[in-house]
Amino acid sequence: MGKGAKLSKIGERKAIEEMTKIFMRRSPEKGAKCSLSVGIGDDCAAIDMGKEYLLVTTDVISRKTHVPRQATPWQIGWFLVAVNLSDVASKGGRPIGLVMALGLPRETEEKFLLDLARGMDDCARAYGTQIIGGDTKENSNLTIAGTALGLVKKERFMPRFGAKEGDLVAVTGRLGAAAAGYYSLGSNLGIKTAENAMLEPQPRIAEGIALAKSGAATSCMDISDGLATSLYQMTKLGCEIEVSKIPIAPETMEVERLTGKNALEQALYYGGDYELVCTLKQDMAKKAVRAVEKAGGRLAIIGKIGGKRKMLLDSNGKKMPLENRGYEHFL
Amino acid sequence: MGKGAKLSKIGERKAIEEMTKIFMRRSPEKGAKCSLSVGIGDDCAAIDMGKEYLLVTTDVISRKTHVPRQATPWQIGWFLVAVNLSDVASKGGRPIGLVMALGLPRETEEKFLLDLARGMDDCARAYGTQIIGGDTKENSNLTIAGTALGLVKKERFMPRFGAKEGDLVAVTGRLGAAAAGYYSLGSNLGIKTAENAMLEPQPRIAEGIALAKSGAATSCMDISDGLATSLYQMTKLGCEIEVSKIPIAPETMEVERLTGKNALEQALYYGGDYELVCTLKQDMAKKAVRAVEKAGGRLAIIGKIGGKRKMLLDSNGKKMPLENRGYEHFL
Repeated sequence: MGKGAKLSKIGERKAIEEMTKIFMRRSPEKGAKCSLSVGIGDDCAAIDMGKEYLLVTTDVISRKTHVPRQATPWQIGWFLVAVNLSDVASKGGRPIGLVMALGLPRETEEKFLLDLARGMDDCARAYGTQIIGGDTKENSNLTIAGTALGLVKKERFMPRFGAKEGDLVAVTGRLGAAAAGYYSLGSNLGIKTAENAMLEPQPRIAEGIALAKSGAATSCMDISDGLATSLYQMTKLGCEIEVSKIPIAPETMEVERLTGKNALEQALYYGGDYELVCTLKQDMAKKAVRAVEKAGGRLAIIGKIGGKRKMLLDSNGKKMPLENRGYEHFL
Repeated sequence: MGKGAKLSKIGERKAIEEMTKIFMRRSPEKGAKCSLSVGIGDDCAAIDMGKEYLLVTTDVISRKTHVPRQATPWQIGWFLVAVNLSDVASKGGRPIGLVMALGLPRETEEKFLLDLARGMDDCARAYGTQIIGGDTKENSNLTIAGTALGLVKKERFMPRFGAKEGDLVAVTGRLGAAAAGYYSLGSNLGIKTAENAMLEPQPRIAEGIALAKSGAATSCMDISDGLATSLYQMTKLGCEIEVSKIPIAPETMEVERLTGKNALEQALYYGGDYELVCTLKQDMAKKAVRAVEKAGGRLAIIGKIGGKRKMLLDSNGKKMPLENRGYEHFL
C-alpha cells in the first residue's frame, strides 16, 4: 500500500496500526519515572504508578457519522461517557474522572449544550465519578472526544491479550439488545428497552472490578463491535461457543418475530452492547461468576478456548464457524 | 439570556461557564477515593493521588478553524501535543503520557496521517513523554483532541488563582514571537524563527518544574491567548507592568519595521506564545529566576500585583491601562 493511499481505502484499523508503529518505535525515554506498561492496542493505556496502574482511554464521536438522529442531546452525552467508562471497566478499573473536548458548530443551541452536559454528568455520577475538565472550540461538525481515567491494582489488571488454551469464555449481561434497539429505531418497532440499551449503554464497572478482584480472568475486553469480532480481537486461539449458553437479550426475539432478523445474528455480529467478554481460568470460573453476581451483575460461561478455529456449537452438537464480522458502526 | 440562544451569540466562555455549573453542581460521590482537588477553570484538573496530584488537561483543534493553511501535518501534530503539555507545565507538572482522539475525513492521505503522528511523537519525546493511546474515527472536518497527563507533588502545584497584593509578576521566554510569525506568514515576510515559534511552540516543562520546586510562585498559567488577557484571567487584583521589562521577541520589531504593526501590541495582545506567566512572593523572586535559569530557561520580572486596575508603566513613568483584550485565535 503506497503512502499516497487514502483512509477510505486503507481503513481505520490499518491507519491505527501505522500510527502505533510510530508511537512505539522507540522505548520510553530514560529517566521517565512513569512508563507505559501496557501497549497501544489494549482497551486502555496503563501507566505504572507504583502499586497501581493509571488507566487512560479516549473515544471520539461526531454527529454526522456516529450519532443516530433519534438520540437526544442528553443521550449523546451519556453515551460518550459510558463508552469511555466501559474501557476502564474492561481492565478492572475504578474510574477517577473524565475530561471532555467539544467541537461545536456556531449554530449549536445553548439548551442542546446543557442537555449534553447533563447527560455526561449523570452518567459519570451514576458510576461514582465526575467530569473534571474540558475544552470547547468551534467546529463545523459536532465532535466530542472524551478521555476517562481509572485506577486498578497492578495484580488485578485484566489485559486484552492473555487467553490460554483451556480457559472458559464468559460474558456479562445480555447480548443483542443494542442491535435490537437499532432495528427498533430504524423500523419504528417501539421496543423501548432495546432502544435505551443502544442509546444509553451501561458500562460494567462493578462487574469489571469484581471480575478483576476474583483473580480468575486471564483476559478481558468490552464488546463494542459485537461478540464475534471481539473474540477475534482478543486471541488468535480457537474457541467453541455453545449457542444455548449465550445470554441473548429477549428483545432480539421480538425483532426476529417482527422483522425476520435472526436473533442469534443480532447477539453475535452487532456492536453496541458494551458488555464485557473475558476468559477465565477453568478452576476459578465459578468463583468469578459468584463474584460478579455478588456485585449485582451476571456472568455467563458460554464456551471454551481451544483448537485452531473459532466455532459455534448448537444444541444438536452441530458445529458452525463463528465468522469474523461485526463492526456495524451505527453509533 | 434564554436557553434558546445559540453559541454564536453567547460565545465560548459563557458556554463553558454554564457547563461547569452542571459538572460542579454536586460534590463528588461519597466513597470516591480520588476526588477532584482543583476545579474546572484552572489549566489542568488535579486529582488527589496521595502525595501527588495527577494533572489532566484536554485541548481540541480542528482544521477549518484552528490550523493555518501553511502548517505542515508534522507541525499540526507537534502543536496539539505542545499546547497540552503547556498546561501541564503551567502547574509545575512532569508529563507522564498523552492520548489522542482523531476525527479524520475519508479523503485523508496516509502520508498526512503518518506525518501528523510523527509530529505528535516528536513533541512528546522532546519533553520526556509519549503518546500512549488514542482513537480514530471518521469526521467531515479534521479534528484532533489531545489529553495530557502529568504529576506534581502537592505542595508544588501552582494554581491559576493565587496572586496576592505585593507579588511580583514574571514571564518565561520572550513574548510576541508567535504574533510576529502570524504576520510573517500572512504577508510573506519570511521571518522563519517567528513562523516556527507560532507553528511549533515549545511548552515550558523544565521552567515550570523549576518554578514549582523553587516554592516562589503563588500562581501560574500559560499565555495561550496573550499576556494581557492572561493577567485578567489570573486575578481580579490590579497590577503595574513595566514596559521596559517585558522580554519582547526581536521578531516583533522586524514586523513593526516591515508592516508598521506595533511591537508592544504583538507582545501584549496576541496569543500563541505558550510562555508561562506567574506571580512570585517578593522575597523569593530572585530564587525563582535563578532556578529557571539553571533549568536552561529564562524568567523576567515585569511588574507587581497591586491596586485596583491593571496598568502599563512606560520608561517615562507614564501610566496607561493594560487592556483586557487578546484572544486573537489564529491557531
